[in-house]
Amino acid sequence: MTAILAIHGGAGTIGRETMTAEMEAAHHAGLRRALHAGHVVLAKGGNALDAVTQAVMALEDDPLFNAGRGAVYTSAGRQEMDAAIMEGQAREAGAVAGILGPRHPILAARAVLESEHVMLQGRGAEDFCRDHGVEFAPAAHFHTDRRWDALQTELARRAAAAADLRSDADRHGTVGAVACDADGNLAAATSTGGMTAKLPGRIGDCPIFGAGTWADNATCAVSCTGHGESFIRYAAAHEIASRMRYLGESLEQASATVVRELVDIGGNGGLIAVDAKGNFALPFNSTGMYRGVIGSDGVARSAIWGEAMLSA
Amino acid sequence: MTAILAIHGGAGTIGRETMTAEMEAAHHAGLRRALHAGHVVLAKGGNALDAVTQAVMALEDDPLFNAGRGAVYTSAGRQEMDAAIMEGQAREAGAVAGILGPRHPILAARAVLESEHVMLQGRGAEDFCRDHGVEFAPAAHFHTDRRWDALQTELARRAAAAADLRSDADRHGTVGAVACDADGNLAAATSTGGMTAKLPGRIGDCPIFGAGTWADNATCAVSCTGHGESFIRYAAAHEIASRMRYLGESLEQASATVVRELVDIGGNGGLIAVDAKGNFALPFNSTGMYRGVIGSDGVARSAIWGEAMLSA
Repeated sequence: MTAILAIHGGAGTIGRETMTAEMEAAHHAGLRRALHAGHVVLAKGGNALDAVTQAVMALEDDPLFNAGRGAVYTSAGRQEMDAAIMEGQAREAGAVAGILGPRHPILAARAVLESEHVMLQGRGAEDFCRDHGVEFAPAAHFHTDRRWDALQTELARRAAAAADLRSDADRHGTVGAVACDADGNLAAATSTGGMTAKLPGRIGDCPIFGAGTWADNATCAVSCTGHGESFIRYAAAHEIASRMRYLGESLEQASATVVRELVDIGGNGGLIAVDAKGNFALPFNSTGMYRGVIGSDGVARSAIWGEAMLSA
Repeated sequence: MTAILAIHGGAGTIGRETMTAEMEAAHHAGLRRALHAGHVVLAKGGNALDAVTQAVMALEDDPLFNAGRGAVYTSAGRQEMDAAIMEGQAREAGAVAGILGPRHPILAARAVLESEHVMLQGRGAEDFCRDHGVEFAPAAHFHTDRRWDALQTELARRAAAAADLRSDADRHGTVGAVACDADGNLAAATSTGGMTAKLPGRIGDCPIFGAGTWADNATCAVSCTGHGESFIRYAAAHEIASRMRYLGESLEQASATVVRELVDIGGNGGLIAVDAKGNFALPFNSTGMYRGVIGSDGVARSAIWGEAMLSA
């Protein structure tokens, strides 16, 4: 069995002409750090659930990506984070929505997975995390001037009712990881700050099992990124699993079909998926998706637009 | 095309021997009021979305059922309500989680459906409702001594670490409605106070599209009730739709299979479902499920346990 890990750092309109070489290199470096963080677990014979946890923790620590540190701001100038994690053997699952405090929101989701609950939101979720020893960070840890400025720009744009010509990948990024371990067990994890200037309380597809996050050893592990509302209305992640199970489609066929069909309902974005045979697929219908994959050879490969995967 | 409406008022262990004749009659009366409220819409040529809205509003007004007025209390002694609504033509969807204030939580979900959002939680959701003219009710409207006493009993039981021998339908009730209108359009709505003594912030399957609520004209409209965590981990509602679409199963086959398979992961409960041909199914794997159905003849039929449907 070939262990494999794939990750994403958000999808959308990523302006190739406006991205500096430094920013491009920084994104590749961030993706590869996360790939290696997850790969270390798998290479030691660890399980898929721990691998996706480590990969997403690395992306949450990286202020370039919209999750944990560097999460975007709501229209009220607050950060509200969502995260979800699921494993494919017993389909145990945990998610949090609308939280601010836990340094790694994915560890909050993981604590929920290990409880009798599946989903907790807001203050109740934060209290649960405190009671369960999840590490908290001060508000300053999560803040970045870049995201704060993005909020001011978006609010000004709304006030002027101007068309949005900026990168929308910047507005609704997400991070995620999917893995297949040496035992053929699957896991998926997704974490996000949501959309810049989102309404307080807004929940996207990230913490909705079957929409933005899903894992089932019988079919696939999936983590989505993009216009979350569309992914929910399409039950995107579970739709891929259903097409594999009942139509006998391959992981690549099923995930490509879903990403293509999402276009019809405005579902701009993409996803990462693996199956229990170690296949992976990273389809997207937007101009770009920060993504990467690492297999048993330990070589981290990453890409942003339609170019071939680069290895460091 | 035969318009049809089905509803539920929760499923679980409903003690037949402990229920008084008065309580049994009151439940039947409440179910039939809701059936008629939805049927009036369909009989006038109204759409499925309006029909399920009216039916759920009637159940939310009835203190016997765990939604709106008569919602259960969290372990912190507060009421936190979830609701979701979806229509099957364009798969527009709206949900709220963890709210207290809107007199009819299903109207809060409906307001979200009509916005650019799909899911809102907590204070942000309540503010959204205020901004969108959703009617609020004072806290006293939602309170019932029965649910408050149930919380005290549950907290005492936990303190004593005693086995739970009481009716668990009482602990995790939900209300829901599914309809097919004369044009063959489907809709589903679900509303709940969650589980007695639930952790603050806990979200069950009710507001999770694909888990507790789903509507797609191509397959079915579904509303679930029972142990929500299991329904989420099984993507129960979308699983029924997938089996119909990809295996060619009938509504009855697909919903019966899912309710049977849920037993394996502790998914005590049931669901109501209709398809675009006017078929309906009301399967459950618990001892009872408050349920009812009304077709074009306008005769309301309701049942609680495995007995034949009674008409008034």
